[in-house]
Amino acid sequence: MFSVRNGWLFVEDVSVKELVESYGTPLYVTSRAALESNIEAYKEAFKDFPGKVRLLYAVKANNNLSILRIISSNGFGADVFSGGELYLALLGGFPREYILFNGNSKSDDEIRMGVRSAVPFSVDSIDELYTLSETAILEDSEVRIAFRVNPEIDAKTHPKIATALRTSKFGIPWEHIVDVYRTAYELPGVEPRGIHCHIGSQITDISPFVEALQKVFQIARQIEEIGVELEFIDIGGGLGIDYEGKGAESTPTPAQLAEKLLPVFEDGVSSLKSDPELWLEPGRSIVGNTTILLTKVNAVKKSYRNFVAVDAGFNLLLRPAMYSAYHRIVVANKMDREAEEVYTIAGPICESGDILGEDRKLPKVEKRDVIAIFDAGAYGFVMSSQYNGRTRCAEVLVEGSHHYLIREAESYGDLIAKQKIPEHLL
Amino acid sequence: MFSVRNGWLFVEDVSVKELVESYGTPLYVTSRAALESNIEAYKEAFKDFPGKVRLLYAVKANNNLSILRIISSNGFGADVFSGGELYLALLGGFPREYILFNGNSKSDDEIRMGVRSAVPFSVDSIDELYTLSETAILEDSEVRIAFRVNPEIDAKTHPKIATALRTSKFGIPWEHIVDVYRTAYELPGVEPRGIHCHIGSQITDISPFVEALQKVFQIARQIEEIGVELEFIDIGGGLGIDYEGKGAESTPTPAQLAEKLLPVFEDGVSSLKSDPELWLEPGRSIVGNTTILLTKVNAVKKSYRNFVAVDAGFNLLLRPAMYSAYHRIVVANKMDREAEEVYTIAGPICESGDILGEDRKLPKVEKRDVIAIFDAGAYGFVMSSQYNGRTRCAEVLVEGSHHYLIREAESYGDLIAKQKIPEHLL
Repeated sequence: MFSVRNGWLFVEDVSVKELVESYGTPLYVTSRAALESNIEAYKEAFKDFPGKVRLLYAVKANNNLSILRIISSNGFGADVFSGGELYLALLGGFPREYILFNGNSKSDDEIRMGVRSAVPFSVDSIDELYTLSETAILEDSEVRIAFRVNPEIDAKTHPKIATALRTSKFGIPWEHIVDVYRTAYELPGVEPRGIHCHIGSQITDISPFVEALQKVFQIARQIEEIGVELEFIDIGGGLGIDYEGKGAESTPTPAQLAEKLLPVFEDGVSSLKSDPELWLEPGRSIVGNTTILLTKVNAVKKSYRNFVAVDAGFNLLLRPAMYSAYHRIVVANKMDREAEEVYTIAGPICESGDILGEDRKLPKVEKRDVIAIFDAGAYGFVMSSQYNGRTRCAEVLVEGSHHYLIREAESYGDLIAKQKIPEHLL
Repeated sequence: MFSVRNGWLFVEDVSVKELVESYGTPLYVTSRAALESNIEAYKEAFKDFPGKVRLLYAVKANNNLSILRIISSNGFGADVFSGGELYLALLGGFPREYILFNGNSKSDDEIRMGVRSAVPFSVDSIDELYTLSETAILEDSEVRIAFRVNPEIDAKTHPKIATALRTSKFGIPWEHIVDVYRTAYELPGVEPRGIHCHIGSQITDISPFVEALQKVFQIARQIEEIGVELEFIDIGGGLGIDYEGKGAESTPTPAQLAEKLLPVFEDGVSSLKSDPELWLEPGRSIVGNTTILLTKVNAVKKSYRNFVAVDAGFNLLLRPAMYSAYHRIVVANKMDREAEEVYTIAGPICESGDILGEDRKLPKVEKRDVIAIFDAGAYGFVMSSQYNGRTRCAEVLVEGSHHYLIREAESYGDLIAKQKIPEHLL
C-alpha cells in the first residue's frame, strides 16, 4: 500500500513524485489496496456469521463517491447522518434496506426524503418519531425504525467524540427507552424493528462495546414484551486506528472485535424470541489509514521553533487543530535520509492553532520538499473548508500502477460560484 | 439594526419571520446598517489623521463580495492571507496599493499572483523573500514589502488566536529582524517600505497594541539606519467584540484604540526620518456583530439535559466547537416571552462537540421555533464546511426594509460537483 523506493514514498506502484507532478499539491491520495484490505478484514472477521452480521459503512468518515462505490460493491450497507449523506449513499450504490438514516436533528425535509427513499431510520427523539409517523402516513409508507439509545458508557476517547456519556446530545435516555418503543409500537406509519446505540469514535478498547451490547439486550428483552419483533441490533462503530504507528498490538482488529462481540451477541439472541441481525457501523477503521495528504513546503523558517510552512492547513485537515490529533508525517522525497532536525509543521491559515505536527524529527527540510501526512482518510476531506479563501484540493485514487482523479481541485471561481452581488453594489 | 417588534426579532425593518419564509434555514443575515455603523466608528476615530491612517479590512473574517464592496466603498484597503483572498479583495473593489498580501506560507503561484497584482507584501520568512525577489525580477516588477515581525507579546486571548507569542508560527523573530531588512534592502525586485506586526484576535485590552507599536518603532529606527524609507507601519488588527452582551464598557471602541495608539504613533514618527502611515487591520470589529445565523428547531428532547436540536451546527459556525466560543442565542419568534427553561442548543453534526450554546435560559422552545445566534459575522460562514454531507446555507443582506440574497444555498448536487467517478467504478 505505502512503501519506499529510491528515496520516494510510493502509494502502491505510483510514486508520490508522479502524483505531485500530475496533480499538484495539496492532494489527498487513497490506496485502493489499503481500502480493500480493511474491508476484507471486516468481512473475514464476521464470515462465520453469514446473513447474521451486516456492516454499515459510516459515510461521514469519507463520502467520496468512488470510495463509497468500492465499499458498497463489497456488500456493505451505510450509516448516514443527513439528507446529503443519504443522497451520497444512494449514488454510492448502497442497498436502501441497509442504509440506516441516523441523526439527532433531522429536518422535516430530510425526514420526507428518508421516507421516500424507503430507508430504515434511527430515531433520536419523540419529536422526530411523531414527524416521522405523520410523514409516513402522508407518503403512504411504513418506516422501519430503531431508537438510538444512550447506554451511558464512557468509551474512553476524546470528549468531543465520545457519544454515549450521560450528558451527550445523542439518543433516548436509558430510563425512557421502553416507553418510547411502546409509543412507537402503537403509532401508525412506523414499525419498531431495531435498537441502535453508538458509544463514540477512535476507541481502542473493546470492552465498552461489549458492555454496550449487553445493555442493549436488556432493552431488547423488555421491548419484546411489548410485542416488538427485532430485525436488527446496531451497536454502532468507533473502532480506532493506529495513528501513532505504535504497531499491530496497539489497536484492536475487526477479528478481535468479532471474537469479543459475537459470543455476547449469540448469548443475547438466545434470550430473545426474535432473531435480529447484528449491525456494525465502521468508518474510520475502513478508510482512515488508506489515504495520505500530500503538501508542499513553501518555506522553512528558523524561529524560536523550527517551522516548516506547507500549503495544507486546517482548511484541509482539521483534526490536529480541532482535537489535538496526531498524524504521522514524513518527507516523501527524502524517505532514505536520516531524521536529523526537529520541526513544527505549520499550515497557511491565519491562526496560531494551524499546526499539523509539533516537534517532529525529520530529515533536513527545504523549500519545495513534499510532506506526506498519514491516516488522513477519515474525517479529512469531509471536514475541509474554504477558510482564508483557500480552495479545496483534489483527491486521487491509486490502483496498482494506475491513478485516477476522483475529485477535481477547486479554482478561485468556486469561492464565488454561489455569490450574488445586488445591482446597487456593483 | 436588531430590534423586537410583535414578539419577533427584526433585522432593520425586516422580520426574521419574513426572512425565514423567503429563504428557509439555516440562514446568515447581515444588517448593512450595523456594518456601516462599525465602519463609521473606525472612520470617525481616525478622522483627525487624514491621509496618515489607513484602515485595511481583514478579509479572512468575512469574504462575501457584497460585504467587501460595502467596506471598500468606504475607503478601506484590505489585508489578505492567500491568493484566494487576494482574488476576492480585487473583486471586492479594494485599491491594490492598499491590499497587503500577508501569509506565513505563500506558494510560488500565490507569490506570482501577488507580484502581478502589484500589491504590497508582508513577508514572513527568508525563503519567501528570496522567492519574491526572483519572481519580481522575472516579472520585471518592484514589490513594496514589509516584514512581519514577532514582537513577542502576549495579547491575553485564546491561545489558538494569539499570534505573537514567542513560539508562534508567524513572523520573523525579534533578534533577526534588522538582518532581514538589511538583506532585503540589498536584494533586487523588493523594496522594504513597511513594518508589519499582528498580536492576535478578539483582544479586549488595548495595552498590548500600545506595547507592540512601541516595539515596532524600535525596529523602525534601526532599519532607517540601513537606509530604509518607511511608508507604513502596520500594527495589525484584533480588536475584540462583546460576544457576551456585557455592554459598552466591556470592549474597547475604535475611538479608545485611536486615543491610545495615536499619541504613541506621533511620538514614534517624530523620532524617525521618514513619515510612515499607520495601517490597521480590523476584521472582527467591522463585521462580527453585523450578522445573525438563523436556525430552525428540529426537535426538543428532555434528556439528562434539555436539548434543542437545530439545523445549523459546527458545519456552519465552528467557533463554539473549536474555541469554546460564546454566542448569544435567542428564540427569534418568542422575543416577548419570559425565559423559563434552561436548554443546550445542539447542531445536527455527528459529534458530541457540536453544541452551539450550553445551558441557556430561554422561553419554552418547541419544534419549528427559529433560533437566532448573534455576532456570527466574523469567522462564521468563512469557516463553514460540508461536513456530514451538509450543504452550506444562504447569506442575505438587509438594508432597511429590503433584503437581498448575497449567496445562494448549496444543493446536494454541490456535494458532488467536483467529483469524478472512474469508468470502472460506475
